[in-house]
Amino acid sequence: MILKDEVSKENAERLANAISGFLVQDGRWVIATSAKNNSVPLQFEDLVDRCLIFESDFQLSSKIYNPQKRAIKIGSISLGDDRSTLLIAGPCAVENFSQLEETAHFVKSLGVKILRAGAYKPRTSPYTFQGLGLDGLKMLAKIKELLGLLIITEVRDATHLNEVAEISDIIQIGAKAMYDHAILRFCGKSKKPVLLKRHFGATLQEFLQAAEFILSLGNFNVILCERGIRTFETKTRFTLDLCGVMYLKEHCNLPIIVDPSHAMGHAYGVPDLAKACLALGVDGMMIEVHPNPKAAFSDAEQQLSFSQFSQLVNDLRELAKATGREII
Amino acid sequence: MILKDEVSKENAERLANAISGFLVQDGRWVIATSAKNNSVPLQFEDLVDRCLIFESDFQLSSKIYNPQKRAIKIGSISLGDDRSTLLIAGPCAVENFSQLEETAHFVKSLGVKILRAGAYKPRTSPYTFQGLGLDGLKMLAKIKELLGLLIITEVRDATHLNEVAEISDIIQIGAKAMYDHAILRFCGKSKKPVLLKRHFGATLQEFLQAAEFILSLGNFNVILCERGIRTFETKTRFTLDLCGVMYLKEHCNLPIIVDPSHAMGHAYGVPDLAKACLALGVDGMMIEVHPNPKAAFSDAEQQLSFSQFSQLVNDLRELAKATGREII
Amino acid sequence: MILKDEVSKENAERLANAISGFLVQDGRWVIATSAKNNSVPLQFEDLVDRCLIFESDFQLSSKIYNPQKRAIKIGSISLGDDRSTLLIAGPCAVENFSQLEETAHFVKSLGVKILRAGAYKPRTSPYTFQGLGLDGLKMLAKIKELLGLLIITEVRDATHLNEVAEISDIIQIGAKAMYDHAILRFCGKSKKPVLLKRHFGATLQEFLQAAEFILSLGNFNVILCERGIRTFETKTRFTLDLCGVMYLKEHCNLPIIVDPSHAMGHAYGVPDLAKACLALGVDGMMIEVHPNPKAAFSDAEQQLSFSQFSQLVNDLRELAKATGREII
Amino acid sequence: MILKDEVSKENAERLANAISGFLVQDGRWVIATSAKNNSVPLQFEDLVDRCLIFESDFQLSSKIYNPQKRAIKIGSISLGDDRSTLLIAGPCAVENFSQLEETAHFVKSLGVKILRAGAYKPRTSPYTFQGLGLDGLKMLAKIKELLGLLIITEVRDATHLNEVAEISDIIQIGAKAMYDHAILRFCGKSKKPVLLKRHFGATLQEFLQAAEFILSLGNFNVILCERGIRTFETKTRFTLDLCGVMYLKEHCNLPIIVDPSHAMGHAYGVPDLAKACLALGVDGMMIEVHPNPKAAFSDAEQQLSFSQFSQLVNDLRELAKATGREII
Repeated sequence: MILKDEVSKENAERLANAISGFLVQDGRWVIATSAKNNSVPLQFEDLVDRCLIFESDFQLSSKIYNPQKRAIKIGSISLGDDRSTLLIAGPCAVENFSQLEETAHFVKSLGVKILRAGAYKPRTSPYTFQGLGLDGLKMLAKIKELLGLLIITEVRDATHLNEVAEISDIIQIGAKAMYDHAILRFCGKSKKPVLLKRHFGATLQEFLQAAEFILSLGNFNVILCERGIRTFETKTRFTLDLCGVMYLKEHCNLPIIVDPSHAMGHAYGVPDLAKACLALGVDGMMIEVHPNPKAAFSDAEQQLSFSQFSQLVNDLRELAKATGREII
Repeated sequence: MILKDEVSKENAERLANAISGFLVQDGRWVIATSAKNNSVPLQFEDLVDRCLIFESDFQLSSKIYNPQKRAIKIGSISLGDDRSTLLIAGPCAVENFSQLEETAHFVKSLGVKILRAGAYKPRTSPYTFQGLGLDGLKMLAKIKELLGLLIITEVRDATHLNEVAEISDIIQIGAKAMYDHAILRFCGKSKKPVLLKRHFGATLQEFLQAAEFILSLGNFNVILCERGIRTFETKTRFTLDLCGVMYLKEHCNLPIIVDPSHAMGHAYGVPDLAKACLALGVDGMMIEVHPNPKAAFSDAEQQLSFSQFSQLVNDLRELAKATGREII
Repeated sequence: MILKDEVSKENAERLANAISGFLVQDGRWVIATSAKNNSVPLQFEDLVDRCLIFESDFQLSSKIYNPQKRAIKIGSISLGDDRSTLLIAGPCAVENFSQLEETAHFVKSLGVKILRAGAYKPRTSPYTFQGLGLDGLKMLAKIKELLGLLIITEVRDATHLNEVAEISDIIQIGAKAMYDHAILRFCGKSKKPVLLKRHFGATLQEFLQAAEFILSLGNFNVILCERGIRTFETKTRFTLDLCGVMYLKEHCNLPIIVDPSHAMGHAYGVPDLAKACLALGVDGMMIEVHPNPKAAFSDAEQQLSFSQFSQLVNDLRELAKATGREII
Repeated sequence: MILKDEVSKENAERLANAISGFLVQDGRWVIATSAKNNSVPLQFEDLVDRCLIFESDFQLSSKIYNPQKRAIKIGSISLGDDRSTLLIAGPCAVENFSQLEETAHFVKSLGVKILRAGAYKPRTSPYTFQGLGLDGLKMLAKIKELLGLLIITEVRDATHLNEVAEISDIIQIGAKAMYDHAILRFCGKSKKPVLLKRHFGATLQEFLQAAEFILSLGNFNVILCERGIRTFETKTRFTLDLCGVMYLKEHCNLPIIVDPSHAMGHAYGVPDLAKACLALGVDGMMIEVHPNPKAAFSDAEQQLSFSQFSQLVNDLRELAKATGREII
């Protein structure tokens, strides 16, 4: 329900309570609620401008509600403006300070502005490297200070939300945490940009509903990230769902970035997939790069070497010209 | 690594630290660690009885390590003894005290000893009923006191672990939380029985690795639950993976229960699927039943009515005789 | 469209032509046609008793059209009468006469009445055993004559339809041929019983539409066979879709048999899955058995040995008593 | 087994018979056979130059056997030369002569050299438009004569192989026919170019094995076509597997084209997906275009209108410059 311009916060809150809805300020006061609450109680009719009925619970992120793509500010960067494609790069995990520093210097030298690296790794096995945790976060904070790069790092579970939110410029919700209500609600109450990765077993519908958890609490700085879904095909790690990205571009007002590294799972396929994503018109890409991929503590198969990454950035800048976009 | 009988805790700890392994007491001291740590440091060789190398990180739950199925005590019940099949029943969610009480009385009258009901519901949409939370837990505690039923309820995220652990006789890790490290680690340090549901997008390998997070911290009271995986078929909610259950029965030493209600998603299919599970030889089943399924706040399609459930329990008891098992 | 009792064949044909429909005699004259043809031309209105509109093109096989399950005669056997469960058994492929004869004698000694064995094998690789073809068919014909067993064998492609139809008592359309129009139409014009296997990538909707190809040409002797679908899980060969079987039991009027051997792909899981199918209430089962599974030319992993099969038949007969069905 | 240069046909045939192999002339005589036949019989050792052992039955199409991509001649066109990307376009089905003629003129005016259109449609339902069959083929033959376009049309089943082979410049094996031995073997004995579509339920392994059926009979003019696989996602018709295309580019020596129309199932997504495919470096694309998509007899949702297609061709030519390829 989109309320009238002049409605006061108090009145808006009263209506929201009456219909168990989420009150958010999005230009005007807006109340998101179950599709079952499809009539306005009589005494509140004067407050309501328009009432949209949604078949599914995909509402605030829908182009039916707001056809304009939301541009998101991350430091000095504007994501989702349709004139640029954002490149996020870095190693899978922080392994030690020198590995992180070397990679950070390298990607910065190629013009990359946002560094990715995991401190809390959501590994499937307890017997493998689990990330450096808080120590890794501190290394990221130091790099940020030294090099002026923006940082994105992942929150694995609800026990370290504050720590990640403090140092990370974008809070990354990993695929396996996509359904975690504690994380989604924390992010909804934050104002930080949030990168929400699609779970590899999640439908597009569920992916958008997870985004609605954040939006309905008032944080509109949500970036969607497609990173491959699980299918019967096992020659590649996952199956990158670019048809799904087209669906999101058509129906959803949030910016979309793609992670070809996790989808492919093998470095050989990542550069061409990244070019495909650029030509498709995504808002950004997230690519894994490591000083010595073979020795990486995790995801060794899929991280690009420095020379592969450098070649890719050149190719992307060349290709970007033909698409009317700039790589940032 | 299985250590010799006479090894002291101190020595066991020293070895575990040296190889970054998890020390657990399972009859003898055992250290679980990455398959990469496949040789015993020379100075510790005297401590080690046998060293098993595992291809994948499926170790303590493997029949290669321990061919004997682990029987688990829940109150006076013994789960996994191959002579009985456990029936867990109750509504999807606690909706109010009278709904819970009515169902509890009813299932108790049919001989059911463990009541299920969700207080923290991991819904996919923020705009639907999210469960009663702590109030729901308190109602479960009261029912437990009044009727002497054992309780199983779900932990949705890491923010209410202590509350659930306090009142629930079995901590249920729902499918969407299967990958949650905070929950898995909490359960590993607990001694409570844990029911771990397979994520609908998780391979059997990942399912067992999630169990290993709990086992490697010393809690062996882990029950696996298959509840349907996501496939291309949409006429049913999920696809119950009984081939997967057969794989687990063959290779894994943990008890397995099956939840046909969530797999099917439609009440009409649940009774016959439950009979199939019994004939397959599962250790238990979890069935949703509600006083008035059509009016249920969640999962209305799949909950059995009292008369359907009553008929099912009779049929299961009859069928059980031919299988040499007893329904408990 | 169900025509009135007294309508003549000529008039029925005229109406069928007018609306491009399939005229079949099913007690009365019935015309199946696209859901788009949802009105009866004025001049034919007198001919029509009832006109059912179907959302999808699942019509003659639907319980909406005919709620009664179709019982199918195969020799002296009646399949689908809800009092018996049919057991079909035999090796994956005819390898030579003595292997076939030995298996045929053995299964007959256990009371099995229908022998399965492939002569034309739809292998995925050209470099493996492709079946004995016509020679294999001739061996099957000889066994039939010698032992009086009924035979089911597979048609691989449209080049040997007549040969298979001549000797086989049931024409088997394998999973990979489920979409083959030439085979489906040939079977529609035949009167022989047809066993239609679900393609491992086919939805239930597509499976039933394939059956409609046969039914709409007037052959109602169609048996559906679920044999596992392809999912992301690779520890088992396929995933047996018993939820799908429940959907078919609820909505479709054709008998359903299940093939646990192909679904599981490993002999260890087949017996318990077969028991589960019996308890679920299927109309029949198809099980692979071989005198020496390890030496089998195809599907060596999944065929039961004679002793395993013998044990299974005993167990099934025991269990059948508790289900009110008889194993035939 | 790659035989020595000087080996005579007679000797090559003798060896092929001895090891039940497929003898093909590929520059030199080569014998493809099961990986189990991994030793050369002593008396033939002199004939053999090199003997490659393949883990799976993916041999003649493998880059291990022949690292050079096979360029295929279709009329004056050379497919697979890495300097050009082939555009194939046309309606889903031949509906009538004027629809076909209009589309053919239009695509020709944009520089398209190969026209696609189905005469035998492999529909999933018997109650929908099944294609014009032989009449449709004749219309295609007439267009070919009138406009000088090359033609690709689909063989649905084995009953019309000769007819299709006679008029079509490329024999299209549709996804549902990918496993059809009769079609594969016919194509193997033909010299015509064959476009083999991946079944939506087929692994890459099976897809390549289907290609091996054709190659092993001596026809090397095989073009692979990825057209989307079936996954749990239903908002789009299929999921285009570009990770799979990267696997094929890395490991297989056959040219690859992509069909974004069938994968997406909705016209809105097709243009951007086509651009992505171009940037990915595919050898060709197949796009559906129709004079009046809404009125199309089949696949109405996914066919581009003339103006959409015209815009797309312009965009592709522009983008192609940045990729060093030319659209042909």
